[in-house]
Amino acid sequence: MSATATAQRVYNFSAGPAALPLPVLQQVQDEFLCLPGAGASILEISHRGKVFVDIIQDAEATLRSLLGISDDYAVLFLQGGALLQFSMIPANLLRGTDKTAQYLLTGSWGKKAIGEAKKEGNVETIYDAKDSNYDHVPGPGDYAVSDAAAYLYYCSNETIQGVQFPSEPECPASVPLVSDASSDLLCRPLPIDKYGIVYACAQKNAGPAGVTLVVIRRDLLDRGSENLPGYLNYKNHADGDSMWNTPPTFGVYVLGKVAHWLADDIGGLAAMEKLNREKSQVLYDVVDSFSEFYKGHAQPGSRSLMNVTFNLPNDDLQAKFISEAAEHDLASLKGHRSVGGIRASIYNAMPREGVEALANFMKDFAVKNG
Amino acid sequence: MSATATAQRVYNFSAGPAALPLPVLQQVQDEFLCLPGAGASILEISHRGKVFVDIIQDAEATLRSLLGISDDYAVLFLQGGALLQFSMIPANLLRGTDKTAQYLLTGSWGKKAIGEAKKEGNVETIYDAKDSNYDHVPGPGDYAVSDAAAYLYYCSNETIQGVQFPSEPECPASVPLVSDASSDLLCRPLPIDKYGIVYACAQKNAGPAGVTLVVIRRDLLDRGSENLPGYLNYKNHADGDSMWNTPPTFGVYVLGKVAHWLADDIGGLAAMEKLNREKSQVLYDVVDSFSEFYKGHAQPGSRSLMNVTFNLPNDDLQAKFISEAAEHDLASLKGHRSVGGIRASIYNAMPREGVEALANFMKDFAVKNG
Repeated sequence: MSATATAQRVYNFSAGPAALPLPVLQQVQDEFLCLPGAGASILEISHRGKVFVDIIQDAEATLRSLLGISDDYAVLFLQGGALLQFSMIPANLLRGTDKTAQYLLTGSWGKKAIGEAKKEGNVETIYDAKDSNYDHVPGPGDYAVSDAAAYLYYCSNETIQGVQFPSEPECPASVPLVSDASSDLLCRPLPIDKYGIVYACAQKNAGPAGVTLVVIRRDLLDRGSENLPGYLNYKNHADGDSMWNTPPTFGVYVLGKVAHWLADDIGGLAAMEKLNREKSQVLYDVVDSFSEFYKGHAQPGSRSLMNVTFNLPNDDLQAKFISEAAEHDLASLKGHRSVGGIRASIYNAMPREGVEALANFMKDFAVKNG
Repeated sequence: MSATATAQRVYNFSAGPAALPLPVLQQVQDEFLCLPGAGASILEISHRGKVFVDIIQDAEATLRSLLGISDDYAVLFLQGGALLQFSMIPANLLRGTDKTAQYLLTGSWGKKAIGEAKKEGNVETIYDAKDSNYDHVPGPGDYAVSDAAAYLYYCSNETIQGVQFPSEPECPASVPLVSDASSDLLCRPLPIDKYGIVYACAQKNAGPAGVTLVVIRRDLLDRGSENLPGYLNYKNHADGDSMWNTPPTFGVYVLGKVAHWLADDIGGLAAMEKLNREKSQVLYDVVDSFSEFYKGHAQPGSRSLMNVTFNLPNDDLQAKFISEAAEHDLASLKGHRSVGGIRASIYNAMPREGVEALANFMKDFAVKNG
């Protein structure tokens, strides 16, 4: 049964929820009816029992080790996805102050984050890549951050546009740097000490939908008012070790297994970054080699390791591309409904073989239809 | 492997996350690597693709059929658990009004709900069972609801105390009746038309942790301000068919399978209620037969079908009871840390055999230690 099921699996280029490492899925399946030591499924056990407490503590420890997260930071497993973080961040760090939160706007998710932040206080967009249709990220000197800003916010990888910051934006030490890393956390090492908050909904590069990882510097925990809805106050979750209410137990469990896969099978985040650079280069090389046929969206210096976005000469060819790719077991390549085109999401779990299969298909398709 | 794993399963009396139907767990396991039609795991597929859209629509349709939910109501699959609902309800129905929300307080979860509601506006506790240590629910005439109340709130089953409303409290037609049914939704038929909002976090009687089912009368959707954090506004979720952001896809999928198990294997909620009445009676009969040894917490008219709570003569005997029960594969019987004692949670998925095994253990234990 298992061998058959594995054989039926396609290369899944979905932008999220997205591919997960097959060894992780197999482990989950193997122990799904009866988790060792529990006598029950992971879905059925109390979050306060020893078996689950060991699971969540191990997930946190593995993530701390992978990312080099010191005790100066709390690691939280929350619900509500990035959309709830769009509100929680300004609700905790901006509401009730006379400060301004500054945002770098490089794509669709940043725009939504700004919309939510404006409900909570003063917001200033200090860089907006709109004029070039969000095909790049700013460099040093392209924007100025105020020393008195409530925080500086950016989205490290915009999945829809396929643009990624190659490294952290410049930010004064007095200003908490906040990153939506929903689609690229764990794709490479990260200098956590530069951040006030880094968060990621898990369903792109880390786990299933329904769990959101938040890494927050502990001195920021006291900024939320006690009058906030309790769930929105980071301090409640930190004080409760993510057990202020029932955490999304299954998501935490899978996220922990993905972290172990990165640490043990891949060899850590530097090794993962090397693989991701190689994988994305395979596709960008095809785009560049057939530049009359494939038009890459992102400028070369802003190209994402995670989401390779490009357009074909016309809509008919794009539809044909998606349809024929699916016949080759290359699935979910359609670009986001808001921008169209093709998007190949190649997160950590996408094997190199999948990328090479897509590259070969792209070459053949360009030759036949170019 | 599967037969071995099944044999290792214990009878799991956890209060939540809690036992799920074994046929549901087996189906999930069977198709975990490769969902039919998807070529990928349920964890890996886009929430906007046809396979998942079919899953969420089928889950909604099955729940509508089971509970008799008309088109006057929206059915939402949210995140954040009951704790977030404690805030969302007053944030949508109370904030910015000069009305008062009225609460019936019959246990620990109601108390937490009141704490969150007070942040949003005027709150009045019109019945509080504190003086009898929350051992009962009020009857008609024990409280008076204002015709002008923002809403009347109650918790239909308090898991920690083990008290359950036998039917809906009296409520004027002008006042939306709001129920936290986190631990007893789907245990019996429900006259949905009497409610403004019924909600349940899934992890007690309906699915895994991380998905919260909200049934809300559509005329209430417009009461939330556009200035609310977007995730907290019910209207966003209703307008987006629970796809305003990425829903907790795995939780929705399991919840849908549980709904099918109820409809197809059990035969609907009236049949489920009959089974639940029989199961709980088996345990309450032992409590009553050995009333010198077991002290039931809830008054007979308020006894829960879902959580049977009782105390033993002293703490040493309670510890011995829990320990010896575990040796008999009767797991997670310790009462909530806030009240102590014994709690046997016997949700829909607990088979009658599990209840009988516990009843036999209780009889033997009382004879040997009484």
